[in-house]
Amino acid sequence: MTDPVADWWGTAVSRIEPNRVELRGIPVQDLIGTIGFGAMIWLMLRGERPTDQQAHLLEAALVAGVDHGPHAPSIAVARMAATCGVGLNNAMASAINTLGDSHGGAGQECVLLLDEIRELEAAGSKLTDATDEVIAAWRERGIRYLPGFGHRFHTRDPRRDPLLELVDRAVTERIVEGGHLRAARAVEAALAPVPMNIDGATAVIYAELGFPAPLARGLFVLSRSVGILAHAWEETGQGRRNKGPIPPSVLPTYLG
Amino acid sequence: MTDPVADWWGTAVSRIEPNRVELRGIPVQDLIGTIGFGAMIWLMLRGERPTDQQAHLLEAALVAGVDHGPHAPSIAVARMAATCGVGLNNAMASAINTLGDSHGGAGQECVLLLDEIRELEAAGSKLTDATDEVIAAWRERGIRYLPGFGHRFHTRDPRRDPLLELVDRAVTERIVEGGHLRAARAVEAALAPVPMNIDGATAVIYAELGFPAPLARGLFVLSRSVGILAHAWEETGQGRRNKGPIPPSVLPTYLG
Amino acid sequence: MTDPVADWWGTAVSRIEPNRVELRGIPVQDLIGTIGFGAMIWLMLRGERPTDQQAHLLEAALVAGVDHGPHAPSIAVARMAATCGVGLNNAMASAINTLGDSHGGAGQECVLLLDEIRELEAAGSKLTDATDEVIAAWRERGIRYLPGFGHRFHTRDPRRDPLLELVDRAVTERIVEGGHLRAARAVEAALAPVPMNIDGATAVIYAELGFPAPLARGLFVLSRSVGILAHAWEETGQGRRNKGPIPPSVLPTYLG
Amino acid sequence: MTDPVADWWGTAVSRIEPNRVELRGIPVQDLIGTIGFGAMIWLMLRGERPTDQQAHLLEAALVAGVDHGPHAPSIAVARMAATCGVGLNNAMASAINTLGDSHGGAGQECVLLLDEIRELEAAGSKLTDATDEVIAAWRERGIRYLPGFGHRFHTRDPRRDPLLELVDRAVTERIVEGGHLRAARAVEAALAPVPMNIDGATAVIYAELGFPAPLARGLFVLSRSVGILAHAWEETGQGRRNKGPIPPSVLPTYLG
Repeated sequence: MTDPVADWWGTAVSRIEPNRVELRGIPVQDLIGTIGFGAMIWLMLRGERPTDQQAHLLEAALVAGVDHGPHAPSIAVARMAATCGVGLNNAMASAINTLGDSHGGAGQECVLLLDEIRELEAAGSKLTDATDEVIAAWRERGIRYLPGFGHRFHTRDPRRDPLLELVDRAVTERIVEGGHLRAARAVEAALAPVPMNIDGATAVIYAELGFPAPLARGLFVLSRSVGILAHAWEETGQGRRNKGPIPPSVLPTYLG
Repeated sequence: MTDPVADWWGTAVSRIEPNRVELRGIPVQDLIGTIGFGAMIWLMLRGERPTDQQAHLLEAALVAGVDHGPHAPSIAVARMAATCGVGLNNAMASAINTLGDSHGGAGQECVLLLDEIRELEAAGSKLTDATDEVIAAWRERGIRYLPGFGHRFHTRDPRRDPLLELVDRAVTERIVEGGHLRAARAVEAALAPVPMNIDGATAVIYAELGFPAPLARGLFVLSRSVGILAHAWEETGQGRRNKGPIPPSVLPTYLG
Repeated sequence: MTDPVADWWGTAVSRIEPNRVELRGIPVQDLIGTIGFGAMIWLMLRGERPTDQQAHLLEAALVAGVDHGPHAPSIAVARMAATCGVGLNNAMASAINTLGDSHGGAGQECVLLLDEIRELEAAGSKLTDATDEVIAAWRERGIRYLPGFGHRFHTRDPRRDPLLELVDRAVTERIVEGGHLRAARAVEAALAPVPMNIDGATAVIYAELGFPAPLARGLFVLSRSVGILAHAWEETGQGRRNKGPIPPSVLPTYLG
Repeated sequence: MTDPVADWWGTAVSRIEPNRVELRGIPVQDLIGTIGFGAMIWLMLRGERPTDQQAHLLEAALVAGVDHGPHAPSIAVARMAATCGVGLNNAMASAINTLGDSHGGAGQECVLLLDEIRELEAAGSKLTDATDEVIAAWRERGIRYLPGFGHRFHTRDPRRDPLLELVDRAVTERIVEGGHLRAARAVEAALAPVPMNIDGATAVIYAELGFPAPLARGLFVLSRSVGILAHAWEETGQGRRNKGPIPPSVLPTYLG
């Protein structure tokens, strides 16, 4: 491309021409009705269609993360924003915007942690040694809670087991290789009795499926957006106006 | 519930207890691996699982809207924001935030348009009369372009036909009733040769599936978020910094 | 301008050339150190410098609206977002984004209300008649609380009197004309004993100074951004992580 | 405070009670009309009123950063978002959200750079040695462009000189100490002929006035919000709809 505008705004994601829409090189009419939404996410991010088994595993991770209740800041923000006279898209944006390093980035960080272990393994370390070394290095950087392990509410996160069972099966069926799963289990063993949480289990899936670490956050945003929309919409139906964090009946005490 | 906090933050969307996550009353472990992502969106928004056919139709609409290229403001915003040293979630939020009344709200408006026609029908009007009456009323309110019809680039939107074929089949198979489809075709006939566009065709699907109008915007946000993420991610990989709208080679001319 | 890019991105707000920055036609070096921040806001929005008296009145309104505590959704969102691992700018954006029609738009609506009264006056109505007619029309549109009047917490908003005193003085000194002030007082008299609130008093100032209604919202955003930043920053210093709306000690009760 | 809600949402920024609004311990009626907007920003962030000289210097920095034209991503985002059917506050939020590490964080980074030099000085190093050591350390971390120095467009940023003159005068008048100014000039000498830019000069002011590094970003957001609003508002008046980055006359070439 020699046109400066075409170059500056060039993309391999989509190609739009009059009466033609191609997504990752595929005419959109060949996708509508023939590809599931999870597979479409994969196609748009990776440039190729997944197999059915890959799409199934991805969708399991996306399903698992949709919501964790209104005490999570993202959900609370969605609900409050929805009462302030803005569009649903704006309420969703305020909420998604809070999925930062500590609220939405644990999966991304966990992939990086597992990647480091796998690199040491690839360089010849035994898995347990590699795991101990990486954990020690992260601790040294002042990181108290390793991303993907332990939970404020759950002594055992109910989403861990079904997700890991799916990965186990996918390893057996040679859909994924299993290296990140083994690394995650090694970390879990080293941290016992602190178990893997939703961020850890989904990080394993995303990494096993070949997504780079930053997309673990991106995929989590797509997943949590569903809960964000559901809560914003429910709140809209309740008719409150400028909902704050403190119940009105408690407000007089708070205001003094 | 008598506790003021529980009442203020109460929700029917999810129930979180230590070691228990219920989404719309269903333990999350019963959903992981057994429900697709499209069906999960339906469940979260409606409170009940869709049938496979309903989920399939919903996913077709979600797939159709993922992207329309970097000349759309939402995609351009996503790409520029991604170069400014913020997280992927922040870049996505800036972009989703632009899906307002004119950029992301056409589907919602189109559902309202079709609803009005159907109400007149329900009150005894013939479809063509109801259609003419509603179009005239919208025109009188100063609305030049009816939402869901006509397109800046496409004389015939390539996403229209495959979406409507799916609705036709769903009517035949008695999955949906067909009233909104008939109303949309009546509008199209009245506006000929201006055809239905993506917003119109997806509005038909969302309305036929029983989603209220505001969720047509919410669902479009979920759909377009996929393209937003894909473009933000691609841009991240190109290493630009503080990308503006004007190509650097054109900038000297612009700056004078 | 004949260059399409220069035309598309053309602006009268600023002119940037190599080694030259002009804001509203004035070289930036002539502004730095010689113009106050309030006057600069006026210059950027209006294209001309205000008099000292105009700037003083504008600043009084900007000062009055900076904050109304963490029970307001915007401030709560700022504080929660600041704990989620995002930049201060992101926390501020999530908060500013909630200043929608019902949370940040009351001043804008109030200017419209007062404008309507003034138009009837200009067409020959007596002030009390114009006021009654406009109030009746707004009530008929289903508006229960007129924008700019009454307050959830304050039977008498402490910001009303000092702001109106400044406007009274400005009328006496012929800095402003006084028509919007009279209209607002007429509404207040009609609604007695419900007094004007902060949105009403600042709407009077913005309108008297010649700002169009939508800028009443824009100026409020600039004003409240100060409180939003102060709260986000204070929260950052307290070291919480992923702060939700419910105090942790109350959470076990909420979670059941 | 023993009430859990009061504790969780407690703040020293403001105190709201029925008919009472205190900002940093001062009744709001004592501030309206008696404090400028720049001084109010200081009060809200620091908890104490500035002197007139301190407020003047702060306002000069705030004035200097309001705008740098539509080729900056933040301004372009504001203008595009304003055409998408969202509120002015939403358009502003999308724009402010892009003021991340590389777009709005240079001032913050520059304060950190200068702080490091000053710490070495405090520990006994000569200024030039401290400067060389810190520059070398930043280079080693892979940082090619030191924050606050050099500019894409300006060989000499026109905002540098007037800002530094104000700081020089403030040093002479013993309003500020001058240590950060000396450190910044030492960096400039080491990087010659690359001069300080707006981020460097404002970082010097914010640091000399005692603001911690993260508030350099926060203050820049307040400053740039003015330009963001001015551009969003101007764009609104031009009546475009869903404005993308590419001029319509260029679009056919881009679309192919």
